[in-house]
Amino acid sequence: MKVDSLDLEACHERIKPFVHRTAVLCSRLINEIVGAEVYFKCENFQRAGAYKMRGATNAILQLSDEERSSGVVTHSSGNFAQAVALGALSLGVTAHIVMPTSAPKVKKKGVEEYQGIIYECEPTLFAREQTANKIVKEKGATLLHPSNDLEVIVGQGTAAKELLEEHADLNGILCPVGGGGLIAGSALAAHYFGKNCKVYGAEPFEADDAYRSLQSGKIEGNETTNTIADGLKTTLGNTNFPIIKEHVSEIIRVTENEIINAMRLIWERTKIIVEPSSAVALAALIRNKAYFKNQKVGIIISGGNVDLSNLPF
Amino acid sequence: MKVDSLDLEACHERIKPFVHRTAVLCSRLINEIVGAEVYFKCENFQRAGAYKMRGATNAILQLSDEERSSGVVTHSSGNFAQAVALGALSLGVTAHIVMPTSAPKVKKKGVEEYQGIIYECEPTLFAREQTANKIVKEKGATLLHPSNDLEVIVGQGTAAKELLEEHADLNGILCPVGGGGLIAGSALAAHYFGKNCKVYGAEPFEADDAYRSLQSGKIEGNETTNTIADGLKTTLGNTNFPIIKEHVSEIIRVTENEIINAMRLIWERTKIIVEPSSAVALAALIRNKAYFKNQKVGIIISGGNVDLSNLPF
Repeated sequence: MKVDSLDLEACHERIKPFVHRTAVLCSRLINEIVGAEVYFKCENFQRAGAYKMRGATNAILQLSDEERSSGVVTHSSGNFAQAVALGALSLGVTAHIVMPTSAPKVKKKGVEEYQGIIYECEPTLFAREQTANKIVKEKGATLLHPSNDLEVIVGQGTAAKELLEEHADLNGILCPVGGGGLIAGSALAAHYFGKNCKVYGAEPFEADDAYRSLQSGKIEGNETTNTIADGLKTTLGNTNFPIIKEHVSEIIRVTENEIINAMRLIWERTKIIVEPSSAVALAALIRNKAYFKNQKVGIIISGGNVDLSNLPF
Repeated sequence: MKVDSLDLEACHERIKPFVHRTAVLCSRLINEIVGAEVYFKCENFQRAGAYKMRGATNAILQLSDEERSSGVVTHSSGNFAQAVALGALSLGVTAHIVMPTSAPKVKKKGVEEYQGIIYECEPTLFAREQTANKIVKEKGATLLHPSNDLEVIVGQGTAAKELLEEHADLNGILCPVGGGGLIAGSALAAHYFGKNCKVYGAEPFEADDAYRSLQSGKIEGNETTNTIADGLKTTLGNTNFPIIKEHVSEIIRVTENEIINAMRLIWERTKIIVEPSSAVALAALIRNKAYFKNQKVGIIISGGNVDLSNLPF
């Protein structure tokens, strides 16, 4: 299946009743620091606190009545879990959520509030998949992948689509890269709705699988995941990687200090709460400010689900 | 001088080019917790990070050209200082800012960025006034009082005026009470632009001068100021007190724990950064939720200038 602009349009209309059209913020001082015009698309204000609500809702809406009646299942360390739980709750569908024991408390609490049924497992991809597959077999639930499902990818792309509706002349959009769903969706949106709008991924040096995947031309794993950006520890998938290869200009890597400084800058200057993963995109812009000088750049603020008891400053 | 609705209208038009019309946010979950419909007027998104920009700008705009050429001076522990510095900078006026040595670093940094000239003094009201008066004498600068100046009070009232323009049927507005400028201005706005909209003050038990002043009928000092709400340690003045006596329904006092819990609730649920002083108003609403049940209530989020290195959680 190849996604075209009509698919994105249809998805956007489909999910509109269930998601917020989030605000776009600017900061005079951040613009001065960067030397560019920066537009923050605030998905931290999205329902369940992250852009993941878009893709999760789209994927559930595309299920048949019969599939919906058997529920959905996903494995996620956080934001996608909350999004599936809330999306399913809104649509009267049971959500089975597999979470690693290492997932932040605030994210588990979110899933519980949205009436998702939590299954804890060891914090390994193998354990997560095994637990999820067991639920698929036993309950007949449909497995939703957080980032490697085309319906999810298209849904995530609606954030960039909205940003381009308001600022049609963006030269570029930066977004963090974890499993690749957000950047693949954003790249499709920029391709169909931007005017030569380039898309850049941002990831920590400490979890730079996407950077190395684009270098080698095949999906690479992470060598380390020792990063504060807990949403970016996952790796690309075979559905999103071809889209990323075709439509993403570059992946920019940043250090942990750059992430923390960018996070603090956003908190202090825009008075909004963003996750470390979101700050990675601004960090990439600051690191490459000579390149982006005088450009109009969008940044997808991916989420705001932070454990306030465990801040890096 | 008695303020009427035309004064508020004229002030609002006067300052509009220099201040933001700030967003109004809601949170489904906070509404559920409180049992009321709550509208947060986000003055943390205001220029210089607080509502004080409104009153400071109005006061400077009302000066004669001659007065402006000699500069302005104020003493403030924080937000008013930044507001005067930025307001003066926008209008080409020199700002002399007296700050106690105890003022948060982030607020001093703000004043410096806005090119205000800082004069440090001991953290007592006497030292602050003495230092400011010296600058009045030596420089011919005009002294701007943070809360007991009618032009400042009317300016601060424009936040509540904007909130009522968007939600005309509010049953009540809650705001924190420090020096009394915000609540006096809000009370005037509610009186002229609300439909039987009551105004409630919120203050810490640890700095409850306004509560006791309304009880005794005369301006009382604080017995302690041992509160996290650093913006609310000041006391009422002879210009704002008569307005407060006439138009404010009640002052609600809250504990330090209630302030911290309300602050955390706002941060976690709305993903915005608010000062402890702002959280005092939500804390008052939660403490009295039986009284406010099913009402439509506005809360003035007074500011977002927090020292991120010194959070209570």
